[in-house]
Amino acid sequence: MIDSLINKIIKMQNPSCVGLDTDFSYLPDEMKEDISTFEGAAERIIEFNMNVIDKVCDIVPAVKVQIAYYEMYGYEGLRAFNYTVNYARGRGMTVIADCKRNDIGSTAGCYSKAYLGKTALGGKTLQAFPADMLTVNGYLGYDGIKPFVDDVKANDKSIFILVKTSNPSSGELQNLRLDNGKFIYEHMGELVSEWGKDIIGKYGYSEVGAVVGATHPGEAVRLRAQMPHTFFLIPGYGAQGGSAEMLKVCFDGRGLGGIVNSSRGILCAYKKPEYSGMTYYEAARAACLDMQQDLQSAIGKFGR
Amino acid sequence: MIDSLINKIIKMQNPSCVGLDTDFSYLPDEMKEDISTFEGAAERIIEFNMNVIDKVCDIVPAVKVQIAYYEMYGYEGLRAFNYTVNYARGRGMTVIADCKRNDIGSTAGCYSKAYLGKTALGGKTLQAFPADMLTVNGYLGYDGIKPFVDDVKANDKSIFILVKTSNPSSGELQNLRLDNGKFIYEHMGELVSEWGKDIIGKYGYSEVGAVVGATHPGEAVRLRAQMPHTFFLIPGYGAQGGSAEMLKVCFDGRGLGGIVNSSRGILCAYKKPEYSGMTYYEAARAACLDMQQDLQSAIGKFGR
Repeated sequence: MIDSLINKIIKMQNPSCVGLDTDFSYLPDEMKEDISTFEGAAERIIEFNMNVIDKVCDIVPAVKVQIAYYEMYGYEGLRAFNYTVNYARGRGMTVIADCKRNDIGSTAGCYSKAYLGKTALGGKTLQAFPADMLTVNGYLGYDGIKPFVDDVKANDKSIFILVKTSNPSSGELQNLRLDNGKFIYEHMGELVSEWGKDIIGKYGYSEVGAVVGATHPGEAVRLRAQMPHTFFLIPGYGAQGGSAEMLKVCFDGRGLGGIVNSSRGILCAYKKPEYSGMTYYEAARAACLDMQQDLQSAIGKFGR
Repeated sequence: MIDSLINKIIKMQNPSCVGLDTDFSYLPDEMKEDISTFEGAAERIIEFNMNVIDKVCDIVPAVKVQIAYYEMYGYEGLRAFNYTVNYARGRGMTVIADCKRNDIGSTAGCYSKAYLGKTALGGKTLQAFPADMLTVNGYLGYDGIKPFVDDVKANDKSIFILVKTSNPSSGELQNLRLDNGKFIYEHMGELVSEWGKDIIGKYGYSEVGAVVGATHPGEAVRLRAQMPHTFFLIPGYGAQGGSAEMLKVCFDGRGLGGIVNSSRGILCAYKKPEYSGMTYYEAARAACLDMQQDLQSAIGKFGR
C-alpha cells in the first residue's frame, strides 16, 4: 500500500493528507441548526466530509480520519467514521485510520481485524472499518504489533507507529536518554525499522512507517538519517505550529519519504479571511492548494 | 470513583473484575446459529453479556469491557459495547472501559468526552460511552493525559495508565534502563504518581491508577513499593499465565490496592470440564467464585 500512496504523491505532486478530524463545531452554522442528537450530528458530519472529499480528491492523495472525533458521537459517530472511510476510498483516496491502537497480542489482533483485516462470522468474512493504513502505539512491544504486521502483509496495508509525536509534552517520555546514550524515540525508531525490514516497497520504503511530528525538526533530522527505509506520517503542520521549513528534513534527496497532515487548517479554512466568500469545501480545496505550494517551495519536486 | 470501587471490593470481599472481551466465537454454538452479520453478532453478544452480568453482579464489583472485541464488529459492535456499559452500570457494577486511548491534547479531549465526559450538541450534553473508568496509554506525556484527568476530576471518574503490561514482549521498551539507572516502566510509574497526586481518596489511592500485569511479579513488587498511592488494574490472571501467588505483591498490608481481571477464564468457563453441565452464565458465576477464593487464599481479607 505504501507504493500506491507514493505513486499518488508523485502523480499529484502533493505529499499531504487532509485530516478529517471533523468536530461538529467546525461545521458552518447552517449545517448545525436543529441538531441535538448523535444521529443528527453524524449525518451532517458525513455530508461535510463527502463535500470536502469530492472537492479535494483530484489534488490530494490521502485522508487521515481521526477516530476520536467520531467516538465522541457514540456509535452513530462510528457509523459516520465508517461511511467516511468507504466514501474516501471510493473516490480513490488512500485512507489512514488514525486510531493509535495498542494492546496485548490477542487484543491487538481484534483491532487489526477491525481496520486492516477481516472479521469471520458464520462462514463469511466482513470488514468493520476498511482502512488502507492505521496508526499504532508501540509501548507494548512486538507481540502487540505483530498482528497488525501480519494483516499488512496479508492484505496489502500499511501501519504508522508512534515514534516522536507532535505535542508539546511528547518529550516527557520520548526524549529521555537510555543507558546506552540513545533517546527513547530513537530506540522506538530502531524497533520500527526492525519490525518493517522485510516489507520494503519499490521506492525503498517499508509498509511499517513512523509518526514523526512536524513540530520537532531536531528529532526529525536524526530519525530520517537513522531510518532510511521508514516512511513518515507527519502531523503538526499548521494549527499545531509546524511549518514546511521545519518538516522538510523528513524528506529524502528525491523529495520523498513523508506525508504531511493538516486538519483544522483545511476543514476550518472557510473561517479565515483569506478564503472569505468561499463555501467550506471551496475553501478546503484552496487551502489544500496553498499547502501543496508551501510544501513544494520548501522541498521541491516530489520524486525527482 | 476509586473509593466507590474499593468500597464494593471490601463489601463483596472480591478484588476482581470480569473482562467482557466477548469474542463472538466464545458464545455457545446455539447462540451462533444463523448469524452472519455484524448486527446479528452484536445482538447475541449483548444477550451473552447481559446474562453474565445478571449472574455475577452480586458477587463481582466491576466489569472491564475491552473495546477491541467490539470494534471488530463495526459500529454495530460499538452499539453492543455501549449497551453493555450501560447495562452493567444499571446493575450496580463499576465499568472499566479498556480502550488504551492516547493522542495529543485536543484529540485526547475527544476521547475523554467519549468515555468519561460529555459531548455538547445543540445546547445539550450527551454521553457517548458512559464508563466509570478508562485505560489510557501515556507514551505522549502529560498534555495527552490532562484532558482525561480533567474529566476524572469534573465527573468523579478514574483512569488507569499503562505502566507494565502483561504481554510477553512488554519489556522490549518498558524494561529498558534510562541513563539514571531506572527502568522505563519505573519512570512511567513516577509520572503516573505525579499526575494523580492531588486526587487521592479516603483509602489513600488516587483516581489515576496504573495497569500492572499479573505476569511480571518482579516489576510489580518494585512498583507497589514505589507507588503507594496508586491503585493497580491487574490483567493477565488465568489464561495469560498470571496466578494469585504472582500478583499478591500488588496488594498492600490491608489487602487493598488492586483489582484483578479475568476474561476468557470466566466467559469460556462453560467449556471447561470442571464446570460441565452448567450454562455459560452459571459457569461464569462458578468461575468468579473460584477466582475469588483463589485470591483470598493468596492475599487474605480485603480491607483488614
